[in-house]
Amino acid sequence: MSQANRGVVYQGPGHVEVQSLPFPELALGNRQCQHGVILKVLTTNICGSDQHMVRGRTTAPPGLVLGHEITGEVVECGRDVEFVKVGDVVSVPFNIACGRCRNCKEGNTHICLNVNPARPGAAYGYVDMGGWVGGQTEYVMVPYADFNLLRFPDRDRAMDKIRDLTLLSDIFPTGYHGCVTAGVGPGSTVYIAGAGPVGLAAAASARLLGAACVIVGDMNPQRLDQARSFGCETLDLRQDTPMPDMLEAILGEREVDCAVDAVGFEARCHGHNHSHEQPATVLNAMMDVTRAGGQVGIPGLYVTEDPGAESQEAKHGNLSMRFGLGWAKAHSFHTGQCPVMRYHRQLMQAILFERIDIAKAVNVQVISLDEAPQGYADFDGGVAKKFVIDPHGSLAA
Amino acid sequence: MSQANRGVVYQGPGHVEVQSLPFPELALGNRQCQHGVILKVLTTNICGSDQHMVRGRTTAPPGLVLGHEITGEVVECGRDVEFVKVGDVVSVPFNIACGRCRNCKEGNTHICLNVNPARPGAAYGYVDMGGWVGGQTEYVMVPYADFNLLRFPDRDRAMDKIRDLTLLSDIFPTGYHGCVTAGVGPGSTVYIAGAGPVGLAAAASARLLGAACVIVGDMNPQRLDQARSFGCETLDLRQDTPMPDMLEAILGEREVDCAVDAVGFEARCHGHNHSHEQPATVLNAMMDVTRAGGQVGIPGLYVTEDPGAESQEAKHGNLSMRFGLGWAKAHSFHTGQCPVMRYHRQLMQAILFERIDIAKAVNVQVISLDEAPQGYADFDGGVAKKFVIDPHGSLAA
Amino acid sequence: MSQANRGVVYQGPGHVEVQSLPFPELALGNRQCQHGVILKVLTTNICGSDQHMVRGRTTAPPGLVLGHEITGEVVECGRDVEFVKVGDVVSVPFNIACGRCRNCKEGNTHICLNVNPARPGAAYGYVDMGGWVGGQTEYVMVPYADFNLLRFPDRDRAMDKIRDLTLLSDIFPTGYHGCVTAGVGPGSTVYIAGAGPVGLAAAASARLLGAACVIVGDMNPQRLDQARSFGCETLDLRQDTPMPDMLEAILGEREVDCAVDAVGFEARCHGHNHSHEQPATVLNAMMDVTRAGGQVGIPGLYVTEDPGAESQEAKHGNLSMRFGLGWAKAHSFHTGQCPVMRYHRQLMQAILFERIDIAKAVNVQVISLDEAPQGYADFDGGVAKKFVIDPHGSLAA
Amino acid sequence: MSQANRGVVYQGPGHVEVQSLPFPELALGNRQCQHGVILKVLTTNICGSDQHMVRGRTTAPPGLVLGHEITGEVVECGRDVEFVKVGDVVSVPFNIACGRCRNCKEGNTHICLNVNPARPGAAYGYVDMGGWVGGQTEYVMVPYADFNLLRFPDRDRAMDKIRDLTLLSDIFPTGYHGCVTAGVGPGSTVYIAGAGPVGLAAAASARLLGAACVIVGDMNPQRLDQARSFGCETLDLRQDTPMPDMLEAILGEREVDCAVDAVGFEARCHGHNHSHEQPATVLNAMMDVTRAGGQVGIPGLYVTEDPGAESQEAKHGNLSMRFGLGWAKAHSFHTGQCPVMRYHRQLMQAILFERIDIAKAVNVQVISLDEAPQGYADFDGGVAKKFVIDPHGSLAA
Repeated sequence: MSQANRGVVYQGPGHVEVQSLPFPELALGNRQCQHGVILKVLTTNICGSDQHMVRGRTTAPPGLVLGHEITGEVVECGRDVEFVKVGDVVSVPFNIACGRCRNCKEGNTHICLNVNPARPGAAYGYVDMGGWVGGQTEYVMVPYADFNLLRFPDRDRAMDKIRDLTLLSDIFPTGYHGCVTAGVGPGSTVYIAGAGPVGLAAAASARLLGAACVIVGDMNPQRLDQARSFGCETLDLRQDTPMPDMLEAILGEREVDCAVDAVGFEARCHGHNHSHEQPATVLNAMMDVTRAGGQVGIPGLYVTEDPGAESQEAKHGNLSMRFGLGWAKAHSFHTGQCPVMRYHRQLMQAILFERIDIAKAVNVQVISLDEAPQGYADFDGGVAKKFVIDPHGSLAA
Repeated sequence: MSQANRGVVYQGPGHVEVQSLPFPELALGNRQCQHGVILKVLTTNICGSDQHMVRGRTTAPPGLVLGHEITGEVVECGRDVEFVKVGDVVSVPFNIACGRCRNCKEGNTHICLNVNPARPGAAYGYVDMGGWVGGQTEYVMVPYADFNLLRFPDRDRAMDKIRDLTLLSDIFPTGYHGCVTAGVGPGSTVYIAGAGPVGLAAAASARLLGAACVIVGDMNPQRLDQARSFGCETLDLRQDTPMPDMLEAILGEREVDCAVDAVGFEARCHGHNHSHEQPATVLNAMMDVTRAGGQVGIPGLYVTEDPGAESQEAKHGNLSMRFGLGWAKAHSFHTGQCPVMRYHRQLMQAILFERIDIAKAVNVQVISLDEAPQGYADFDGGVAKKFVIDPHGSLAA
Repeated sequence: MSQANRGVVYQGPGHVEVQSLPFPELALGNRQCQHGVILKVLTTNICGSDQHMVRGRTTAPPGLVLGHEITGEVVECGRDVEFVKVGDVVSVPFNIACGRCRNCKEGNTHICLNVNPARPGAAYGYVDMGGWVGGQTEYVMVPYADFNLLRFPDRDRAMDKIRDLTLLSDIFPTGYHGCVTAGVGPGSTVYIAGAGPVGLAAAASARLLGAACVIVGDMNPQRLDQARSFGCETLDLRQDTPMPDMLEAILGEREVDCAVDAVGFEARCHGHNHSHEQPATVLNAMMDVTRAGGQVGIPGLYVTEDPGAESQEAKHGNLSMRFGLGWAKAHSFHTGQCPVMRYHRQLMQAILFERIDIAKAVNVQVISLDEAPQGYADFDGGVAKKFVIDPHGSLAA
Repeated sequence: MSQANRGVVYQGPGHVEVQSLPFPELALGNRQCQHGVILKVLTTNICGSDQHMVRGRTTAPPGLVLGHEITGEVVECGRDVEFVKVGDVVSVPFNIACGRCRNCKEGNTHICLNVNPARPGAAYGYVDMGGWVGGQTEYVMVPYADFNLLRFPDRDRAMDKIRDLTLLSDIFPTGYHGCVTAGVGPGSTVYIAGAGPVGLAAAASARLLGAACVIVGDMNPQRLDQARSFGCETLDLRQDTPMPDMLEAILGEREVDCAVDAVGFEARCHGHNHSHEQPATVLNAMMDVTRAGGQVGIPGLYVTEDPGAESQEAKHGNLSMRFGLGWAKAHSFHTGQCPVMRYHRQLMQAILFERIDIAKAVNVQVISLDEAPQGYADFDGGVAKKFVIDPHGSLAA
């Protein structure tokens, strides 16, 4: 089997293009992947972490095929694939995992030891994450397919809900993981920093988890509108009002039970200085607004080196944190990528049984592959949308 | 301060009466309770476990003042009460707890060591539970008030939601505890045995916890209607169809992730023999319908002696259980009364922020104190209602 | 590669023989197992659950090759094995698991969905457990080797500790799992029912977990001596003294924090009637001696059908349980086979760093393959030993 | 009852004195404490956090009566004390807790809401911790005695083990909490930063929890000797060798499973610059040496303001943390004071049943009250001892 293929390729800061690509093989360089499958991509989403690369905030090399949020149909199975079948419609966790190392066996698929020689953990189409080819393409190879893939139980039900199910590959579990590690449960009051897609997914997750009141903070009024559209309260952080005062106006209390940082290292100052980056702003705000004994979930990305940072300290990944404040309040802090596999099956069930409208919460907009570069530009401009690429026109059909 | 008092008194099998009673004192016999308060009862509910006594299935003595589901306003504080104040509107956990023993310190207020000389754990107005006076009365004494009481943050908001908040004293947390111990979370499929008030509260709790699909089984068609009214699926157990077949028709699978027994020892056979008691029916059904590795939450009451049982074995509390089936499926079984304090604050928040309509789910009907005997009779007849006594006409006002 | 092979074969009740066998293939019938490896067996232990079959208490067919406790050296790798290498010295969990199903992904390798068409979960050489060939042999095939096997980090260190490491395939994790599910931790008081190898492994595990006092009950004085040899207290259950009285003499309290049932369905009455079987004896005793709020771990095997039982009820797997007693004490009960993979790596570390002498605790005796039938007979006679078969004389060398 | 009293009083940086003091009352200023008791102090320990005050690194006012590690005998009970009796020998958790607020009910006694108007949490004899009088005295008042106190079951057994039991008030649970929050369990490899008393207690706790290998790092050779005395490995941090290299020499691996920071904000640089403070040194080292997915327990104190710090940043509590490194490794960080009550009962059992020699591990030296100033000086000099004051000569007797 050999066909044409096309996909989104990073060309340098601020520049992506749709290009012709080779059809995927069951291999990564010299590494045979008979445990892998080839997927015809049904949907593949543009992610905020793609933006870090496209903005030139990383060392991503030109020529990188982008895309780690993939949903597809199996069109070819490697020799060692036993349970996944051609024709299955599946969700692909963005973390690539072998299913055989200590970490995978312990459910920590985000830090698999066998898929990236440089460090634990890998992903499709991402700098420093193992060199696996990205999936903003027509076809993509998924290794260790029996382990990694989540099969949807019924093709028709899946296609009906595909705009929701496409979010299982990354942002829905990622936002949910932020909430779980923050200790969100029935009756919790929750603060979510950031109303981008991950923040909105976290907010919707908090509601699924039974939170009493979910409050989202951002500086982008459109995104705050989006958060309010499904029942969240919001904080407009362009204002200079101290956050505890804003919380008190909503809750009658100056602190929340749980906090989720869905912003990460590109954080900007609150208030009238909000055009300036200050990478520890959100972390320090979390310690301020979380009650004593609370937990802070940090799905937002922090990096070890940030050449594009404003300060020398931040360029080398050193953040100025008010750690003593967190200590005095006995906080715990939970970091790292989301192990998608830990959650995706149950979240699929919540979608299929109509317990959550996650596509609506994050405002999914489906676009064609050729519209992807415009999608990148619009998303970078702060539009309150989650762009989902439909490379074969499968959703339109 | 000394006033009149009236309340519901057990007179013998099938017979309760409203009688004049002494005004409560800050004492239980010789035991001083300066840590206690006197409540003016705002609402007090009739519970299925009251019915066990009234049906004569226990050794409850005539003259027992009934009632352990109490919400009230503080009208008098003992000398040692420091944080609760006169005028506070509060929920009373049905478990009486000292807040000072090993079990209370570990959050196990259902098995407090200091409030019942006969065994761990106590309750108001209940046989063998320490002799504390019941609260289906105008006024009641609550010991260890600083520890036991949950204060509602605002009187007006509380009165607006009082039909929901009244369920915090027992059945809402009890149903919720069943779900928590069964491992219910986002995306779970859940089977609830029994559509009485605790079963309905468990079903509503499962939804609050994010369950994908909640299936309730009973033999009472009105109660099944009630379950369907808030989004549950139902099994009519008067039918002889095997339960896995009924589940498959709903779920496409023959087993659920989690199961909750909200029936207990008065269980009856499924199918056409459903007029016969068989105390292990539900437990054995749980092992049948729960997937391997699943957990079974058992808030339904099982007793050590049951003089009214049909079989000799059951009279002495011996149940014929297919334990090997559960073992082969690696089930775990979680029993006992609910430690209400572990949950009531968070569930109050869920009510106050309008994340759950628990009163509607269990079909609360408010009655006067004088209507209580009729309420007992109607409830015993299987009506799909939860009776809430309003002894001072506070809700009508 | 093709060589001779020999192993222990069940011939009928009370009868096992060492026979010539075919050399293993990378297949189970028609099922290809290129994910498997062939092991040269270094050690393989006789287990109490083998005895259930040999005593004729199951439907095991004559001709069954026995043995599910296997440690070996890899001599051949299937085509699809990627990380395990020829020459690796490895421990084999007795549970066979695919590493690709929902249960395996959740760490529940004891109930794998892909290795036994009849039900969740499989094992080597065991009736109704998927038909996989047993490992009380010179050579054995292990499927899904990358997932299942635990590699010892250094061959020489491994051979030095092989008498301990051989227990990682089953009884050490099984006893440990009993303790974990019973909630054993630093400072706990623990009762272990049964001083056979699993009971002794549970007792040693309880000490590793930091238990304050570990009390083992049995009717076999040699086995009780063995328990005392590493610091346990003991109860001689041939006596008619009530167990709480015996506990009080040791602890000053009549109940323990945690209890582990390492006996299972072949339990016999306590006291002077101890020659009679009563399959719920241990379960009922657990409810008696465990404190309110305690957990009961049940690694001891309970079965759905027991043709050899004394009573009609028990023949059909119905146990007469005082479940109401457990309910009144808010106990939880944790059943099923141990998911060995969840624990074996950490327990290997405890052995290699000399934090536990598990071989000494269970009194390992190494025998040759030809001595296996005598080992079965001696073990059935109640000797306080754990027999470890050394089919190639590897330990002697 | 009114008697003389004496105790250790902070006089200013570097200066403590033993002075006459008023006999304690059942009150704190205007706040009545009829829930309290008066203790005759049997033992009271000098703590590293006392040193922070005595070194002048806090705003502690001269005249402060020091001491929060208290073991004593009850000599007087307030009117509202119900379960504690005169003559009881008890351990006092250093955290003062009401037992009645949300946090106490949730087991978070380290952040009680009712004992310190300034912030959650209080302690005896400590700056900014509620103004409660310290216990390096002959007599001390303990509020909420029924809740706070741990009663030893037998006076004679208690006095036999008093050198160990005295450590239950703070450092044994504190070190243990560090290990629990770091996820230490059977088979773990653990790095403990700091070999002062808390670090040594953490190391001993790690062994009690079953850790395979415990490695302690410090710059003080006497303290490292002390760590080796009970089976720990050590790292001498005066050397410039990178820590992963040192770990590899011990473990064969460059990272540990779990890490505990028992140093806090007065951390100094590793290697030849070790005379310079660098408050984030230990935190950053933790991220370096802990494996991906690991947890970091941080019982070491971090502060919001540190007027004595070397850098301007640190004076205002801002630490320069390589947070992106922790994020890339998906670490979690657990901070705050230890909730002693969560652990002290079980650790008492471990002592009474002789499962741990904690006094020996931290090298307890008993001194008289008059020797306390010299004890402070010696401890500040870095001696590898834990000083226990015996104000009445009770241990000598």
